[in-house]
Amino acid sequence: MNNVQEYWGDTLQLMVEIVATAAFALSGVLEAARKRLDAVGVCVVGFLAAFGGGTVRDLLLDERPFFWVRHVNMLWGVLILCVLAMLFLRNHHFELTQKAILWPDALGLGLFSATGVHMALVGQMPGVVAVLMGLITGVFGGVLRDIVCNEIPSAFSDHRPYAVCAFVGGWAYVGLWQIDAPGWLAMLACVSLTVGLRALALWRNWQLPAWRL
Amino acid sequence: MNNVQEYWGDTLQLMVEIVATAAFALSGVLEAARKRLDAVGVCVVGFLAAFGGGTVRDLLLDERPFFWVRHVNMLWGVLILCVLAMLFLRNHHFELTQKAILWPDALGLGLFSATGVHMALVGQMPGVVAVLMGLITGVFGGVLRDIVCNEIPSAFSDHRPYAVCAFVGGWAYVGLWQIDAPGWLAMLACVSLTVGLRALALWRNWQLPAWRL
Amino acid sequence: MNNVQEYWGDTLQLMVEIVATAAFALSGVLEAARKRLDAVGVCVVGFLAAFGGGTVRDLLLDERPFFWVRHVNMLWGVLILCVLAMLFLRNHHFELTQKAILWPDALGLGLFSATGVHMALVGQMPGVVAVLMGLITGVFGGVLRDIVCNEIPSAFSDHRPYAVCAFVGGWAYVGLWQIDAPGWLAMLACVSLTVGLRALALWRNWQLPAWRL
Repeated sequence: MNNVQEYWGDTLQLMVEIVATAAFALSGVLEAARKRLDAVGVCVVGFLAAFGGGTVRDLLLDERPFFWVRHVNMLWGVLILCVLAMLFLRNHHFELTQKAILWPDALGLGLFSATGVHMALVGQMPGVVAVLMGLITGVFGGVLRDIVCNEIPSAFSDHRPYAVCAFVGGWAYVGLWQIDAPGWLAMLACVSLTVGLRALALWRNWQLPAWRL
Repeated sequence: MNNVQEYWGDTLQLMVEIVATAAFALSGVLEAARKRLDAVGVCVVGFLAAFGGGTVRDLLLDERPFFWVRHVNMLWGVLILCVLAMLFLRNHHFELTQKAILWPDALGLGLFSATGVHMALVGQMPGVVAVLMGLITGVFGGVLRDIVCNEIPSAFSDHRPYAVCAFVGGWAYVGLWQIDAPGWLAMLACVSLTVGLRALALWRNWQLPAWRL
Repeated sequence: MNNVQEYWGDTLQLMVEIVATAAFALSGVLEAARKRLDAVGVCVVGFLAAFGGGTVRDLLLDERPFFWVRHVNMLWGVLILCVLAMLFLRNHHFELTQKAILWPDALGLGLFSATGVHMALVGQMPGVVAVLMGLITGVFGGVLRDIVCNEIPSAFSDHRPYAVCAFVGGWAYVGLWQIDAPGWLAMLACVSLTVGLRALALWRNWQLPAWRL
């Protein structure tokens, strides 16, 4: 029961994870390119965006070895992706790429959050901490990316629901876990709720409440 | 002897801790509001300001579970505080709130520093490391808050003594600990020195030495 | 075999380490001074620049106690250095100091990277992770320094090879380790490759490839 891999078909999960990691890395590459970082900066920001959230989660949960130590191929994959992006992405591709990664990014938010919630619940954390860990897994890659690029994290300032979707999805996971629902159902509910809310928010152009002054 | 709770009356300590955590969280909410973050950003910066320092300390001391995992109610409390602040705080309240939290903030600085020094000493750390841990506990919540809000941390740049007060208080704790003074005395000396110095500094408008050019 | 100290003469290594740490700390002091931080800020940024990279490495490798807990004298040394710099460094010294620390800084990059690679290899990490740990050890002090000073890290944006040199040197270490070469040879190869490449890059004014738009 404790193994995320058993919840999904292995292949499906792996494919989704790869697509999501690539989307996160690309978001880093795009921001680094806009900020005119050099080749090293582009790669580092790509890595931070792709692996930052999971690494902070593993640090907080005291989980070793890190997931990117267990799956070294993902390190190579992201490195190759960054180099390819530098060779082939041009300025006029940026807006298109930005739009194209919105969906794998939403998928990644859902999947990574679910993984974070799951790991915290397995580690006997209370529900609210598990949801927090899910949020951190899904969102802090982008936060680290923006901090290094000297921006206020867009997840906190663009008024489009992002973390909130993962928050709702995370509680769905926790709720189903606590009534001993089968694991695949909790995972599926969390991911589809998160992705669905995010898609709805983008489609209907929902805005988070601003500070009323 | 190793338990902070035994040093003070439990109730008194708990009350001071709650007030201090609320003050730290409010400082985050105010800064996030000034930076026009959305609702998610306000909550995250509130959390970082309230729990960031203690979390960095626990990470460095390899102390698990985190204090906010042991006291989940504090997570809920800060979340509710952030939501209430968003509902009721208006722009014209900001300056007043800023002033009103100066005192609970000083109390928090003293108390959090003392806790950090204590935990490091219990973990057999040398004196200078213990003082450093106290500083980190008291100051790094605000540092993380400012970094996420894309500001140079005010603790390092506003030329008003803040960390220095905790530094002096921390050495008082270490000194009394090393001559085997009773625990409540070390705690009391550290907190009152820190808070007293901070109050004096604010009252007399002391300035840290600037770089002489 | 597992002890870095055995690879070099103890005294030589210690001297190089002290010089390198001082150079890293000075780079922090200079940046903090330029940003008009107060005395506390200058010291904190000095500490971050000197100890940040190694601390992040130790956190990621779950290595305790931290190296600055084992060598408390280095904490005192950096504190004294920061105070002395504040007393004696003037604006017109900045450019000179900047140039003078380029060489000890390159030495520090090489030595710290080698230490990071070594510790990761001893901890059974795969080669690419070891190189990453070396990079983090050598580069992240400067990254934290720049983040706190609200700048995009210069290691990612000044287009002069820095991390790349440590990357090449790190692979030399990993390669020699894997063919069971003697430890001092791996260490020497890594440090001299890193320092040599950095020196060449500075001398020939090499530029990292920029984003082609």
